[in-house]
Amino acid sequence: MPERDVPYLCELAAQLRVDSVRSSAAAGSGHPTSSLSAADLMAVLFAHHLRYDFDDPDNPANDHLIFSKGHASPLLYALFKAAGAITDEEMLTFRKRGSRLEGHPTPRLPWVDVATGSLGQGLPVGVGVALAGRRLDHLPYHVWVLCGDSELAEGSIWEAAEHAAYEGLANITAIIDVNRLGQRGPTRHGWDTGAYARRFGAFGWHTIEVDGHDPGEIDYALSDARKTRRRPTVILARTRKGEGVNAVENREGAHGKPLKDPEHAIYELGGDRGVTVKVSPPDSSRPPHVFDSGPTEWPVFEVGTKAATRTAYGAALKALGAARGDIVAVDGEVADSTKSEEFAHAFPERFFECYIAEQEMVATAVGLQVRRWVPYVSTFAAFLTRAHDFIRMGGVSGANVRIVGSHAGVSIGEDGPSQMGLEDLAMLRAVHGSTVLYPCDANQTAALVTTMADIPGISYLRTTRGDTPVIYDPGERFPVGGSRVLRHSPDDRATVIAAGVTVHEALAAADALKAEGVSVGVVDMYSIKPVDQAVLIEAATTTGNLITVEDHRPEGGLGDAVLDAVSELGPRVIKLTVRGLPGSATPAEQLADAGIDKDAIMAAVRRLL
Amino acid sequence: MPERDVPYLCELAAQLRVDSVRSSAAAGSGHPTSSLSAADLMAVLFAHHLRYDFDDPDNPANDHLIFSKGHASPLLYALFKAAGAITDEEMLTFRKRGSRLEGHPTPRLPWVDVATGSLGQGLPVGVGVALAGRRLDHLPYHVWVLCGDSELAEGSIWEAAEHAAYEGLANITAIIDVNRLGQRGPTRHGWDTGAYARRFGAFGWHTIEVDGHDPGEIDYALSDARKTRRRPTVILARTRKGEGVNAVENREGAHGKPLKDPEHAIYELGGDRGVTVKVSPPDSSRPPHVFDSGPTEWPVFEVGTKAATRTAYGAALKALGAARGDIVAVDGEVADSTKSEEFAHAFPERFFECYIAEQEMVATAVGLQVRRWVPYVSTFAAFLTRAHDFIRMGGVSGANVRIVGSHAGVSIGEDGPSQMGLEDLAMLRAVHGSTVLYPCDANQTAALVTTMADIPGISYLRTTRGDTPVIYDPGERFPVGGSRVLRHSPDDRATVIAAGVTVHEALAAADALKAEGVSVGVVDMYSIKPVDQAVLIEAATTTGNLITVEDHRPEGGLGDAVLDAVSELGPRVIKLTVRGLPGSATPAEQLADAGIDKDAIMAAVRRLL
Repeated sequence: MPERDVPYLCELAAQLRVDSVRSSAAAGSGHPTSSLSAADLMAVLFAHHLRYDFDDPDNPANDHLIFSKGHASPLLYALFKAAGAITDEEMLTFRKRGSRLEGHPTPRLPWVDVATGSLGQGLPVGVGVALAGRRLDHLPYHVWVLCGDSELAEGSIWEAAEHAAYEGLANITAIIDVNRLGQRGPTRHGWDTGAYARRFGAFGWHTIEVDGHDPGEIDYALSDARKTRRRPTVILARTRKGEGVNAVENREGAHGKPLKDPEHAIYELGGDRGVTVKVSPPDSSRPPHVFDSGPTEWPVFEVGTKAATRTAYGAALKALGAARGDIVAVDGEVADSTKSEEFAHAFPERFFECYIAEQEMVATAVGLQVRRWVPYVSTFAAFLTRAHDFIRMGGVSGANVRIVGSHAGVSIGEDGPSQMGLEDLAMLRAVHGSTVLYPCDANQTAALVTTMADIPGISYLRTTRGDTPVIYDPGERFPVGGSRVLRHSPDDRATVIAAGVTVHEALAAADALKAEGVSVGVVDMYSIKPVDQAVLIEAATTTGNLITVEDHRPEGGLGDAVLDAVSELGPRVIKLTVRGLPGSATPAEQLADAGIDKDAIMAAVRRLL
Repeated sequence: MPERDVPYLCELAAQLRVDSVRSSAAAGSGHPTSSLSAADLMAVLFAHHLRYDFDDPDNPANDHLIFSKGHASPLLYALFKAAGAITDEEMLTFRKRGSRLEGHPTPRLPWVDVATGSLGQGLPVGVGVALAGRRLDHLPYHVWVLCGDSELAEGSIWEAAEHAAYEGLANITAIIDVNRLGQRGPTRHGWDTGAYARRFGAFGWHTIEVDGHDPGEIDYALSDARKTRRRPTVILARTRKGEGVNAVENREGAHGKPLKDPEHAIYELGGDRGVTVKVSPPDSSRPPHVFDSGPTEWPVFEVGTKAATRTAYGAALKALGAARGDIVAVDGEVADSTKSEEFAHAFPERFFECYIAEQEMVATAVGLQVRRWVPYVSTFAAFLTRAHDFIRMGGVSGANVRIVGSHAGVSIGEDGPSQMGLEDLAMLRAVHGSTVLYPCDANQTAALVTTMADIPGISYLRTTRGDTPVIYDPGERFPVGGSRVLRHSPDDRATVIAAGVTVHEALAAADALKAEGVSVGVVDMYSIKPVDQAVLIEAATTTGNLITVEDHRPEGGLGDAVLDAVSELGPRVIKLTVRGLPGSATPAEQLADAGIDKDAIMAAVRRLL
């Protein structure tokens, strides 16, 4: 960098600081001090290193910039203004009702890849974007992630560090704004950038320690990061929170508050001079790589045989992978159990092994979908709870991610409660914009797996460990929001609503009751969210007696979905669910002990009538 | 260690291997190969280093042993048998219905502190136990945690590593069974113990690399670990999965399966010779430290004023801390927001700052309660999703942990959706054995915080960011499972069920409707789980029209709890909840936009009538 650039970079940084102060003053809230510390870092990045076309945010060649420290949104919006993407007027709508400039950035803004604000998520997601660049798009775009120092305490950062280094991602740079102060007070390591460098270095990263307010050092570090081969780079920048404004500079108690005297702060910063920045566009000459799509053989399971729905997931995912080159799979070192290994063996270049790091696993998928890939993520349903916050934020981002949780419920048998997904339906139903599916047979699973490819937002499919009878013909259609009435007669005195493994218990119960002269209907409610309200209303008004039966806790699952759908009609509803704490036992014993097997359903019907 | 001890240690290890093979053969499932790799490590630990009285598992001076790799349960149970804690007959009930020897260990066994099986949790919890020893009990017990190498990919391990080193916990030793093979295949680093040593070393741990099948090296390492001062120790033991049985030794595809030919394996291992081990009891001469308990001034908020429930939480926690020396508090670097800083300032020795690491935060609390301390854990409700799996496993453990989530709902205002706890009620209600509370005023909060101290299992209290009117007198009682009828008359045409911030909206709506001549009842449903079914049934049978209103997603919250309670009566129920994706706006605008404010309630009443 020529020496003559320094004055401009300082002016640009001052402008970013001025605008951060102005927007948070206008809002009456926000995080100006956390913005001031990173202004020099971002000024140099925008002026000299970022390759981005703000007029074409969908350009595949664009670099990616993720503010992992999402609370520094005033700085991000000041950058957008300096780059000409938003007006000064819009910038001053910060945090106001209806503004797309929210307290923490979301993809309502076309230049924002993912929502941040829950700390420790931007870097893990950035790793996913970088993986897309290196392994899928085959494009040289660079991923820049601005992190705070406080968020380095999050384990998800180290899952990301391990993943990025192991995959040799030289196309990602973490820029750590080491401003020493967290929300409540000093961080564990203060300005000891060496402490962080040792950690990142041990994880295999290239580390650079700089003065985060020296444009020359920053410029050198960013150049070095872009040029580094075979491993990711972390720039540990020693900065001062509130830099440039004496009243708050490097002071405790100034986190997350607008400045008391913004006018004086702007004066101190040299005034509002309207400095802008010209961001260089990327080299768009090379289109992203495309994987072959082609004809495929869809998996077929013969009615009357038995097969595990997780097996059908594996087979369907592999078939889908052959049909569509944009399908990718992500797993957490249990692909032999979830059966995504079928896909992994067929399409190793589109399979992402995240090892036992479920947060990074979901973050990887979120990152891949940023670049329009179509990820399926699988692990045990129980261990998805590990990634709950990432799934929640995926919902806020509107991320299109398909999640498949295997080994659901007590029906896994001997392994015991630690391995049983018993809260997954509650967790996934409560995610904004989610779809929740729970098939009972292999052909239904295959159909739903295929359908999921085009479901927007977070979608979830729950699979079962053991074999279940195949009851549907191959090729049948199962629309989202639908259900299947499996037993029905005008004599029905109750209707059993089941999903997954309990469908087969319900059928057995209905058949046994029939033999006793009691007729009950059975509905396969494979779509838990949205739920088939029409069929439920029909059942509620005809039989008036509903029994829901699910391999899940009483709260937030199938039973609650049914109650919600029929609440205005007032049928009598009995919920059969897993209420106790299971131990080890065979699958059949588990279903019996939980009171969700054939006998329990029959007893519930008798109780109801 | 004298050379003459080696033959015995080898025999003991062989016996542990034989018993691991026998129990999993009898069960027909389980993880013998993951047990075989760690047998030498545990043989030396039990014979020479563990200080534990198996006849008195509640002895405060006992060391603690946590199998973070819970799937190595056959080895753990073989150790219990060798130490005389269980019989051979019981050992062979492994994984059978009704046996306390489950697939993964749980505290149904008195020598097991916490349930494991979800990987990456044992070390974080062990750090909590070690913190209790160093900072609360002032006892020299040592915490030994056996980890697998695969689970080192979990970010929670690195949260624990950071926490333990920062706190200078020399009383914890992580023993890593580096057997190179995960479930699906090789781990990232294989036998490169140096890769792990660099990472732990960078995080501030004392590291020792050993041959995990050499009793002499193991003994030296364990001695060194016990003697090390000022920092935790990690022993990185290079082992072979399936060690001692040729058919599975160091082979892929042998994870989580009983051996095909157990008899031959036992023969190879030298046969079943009934070797036992005498574990030395601890020095019990010193009782655990006790903090002063005493009289206290309970916080008082005047009716008619306004105060935030989070403020009341802070005040009540401080008062409780003065009243009871066993109360401790844990926070995730937001104590100034959650208000647990009141307690932190008053009782710094009983306050645990976990920085922004929510998994380690909950794990710390679980570890502290292992030693009978009474932890309150607080962070933003939204960020509790980060620790969902730890809370879930806490439920499996029957851990007595009080969780307080602040900044619930859209009512936080401008910060936007990333900071809004909108799924917390669904998450916490679905946890086994949980209690869920949601107060609407400061005095109610103070009462419930006090009550929580004696609630077994996982209990949760939800607090609000902004000030709410004080409507209850100080000192009023609010039993778990109760509710308060705030408006009621024989003319009521509907009943509004609210909790927390919406109680005040409901009261305002009822009063405005009253002025219009429409009488509606209002219930403050501060106990969401268990819910006051009697009051709901009364409302359902008298008015027949219920309106639930909550600052939460439609799934799994107050509305669903109400529907579940009255499902057999069939009242008409309208659920007012947060259905869209909020942006930034003022708290009042947020409540209006979500349709859960006074006007929305009035509109719902009109719609219903």
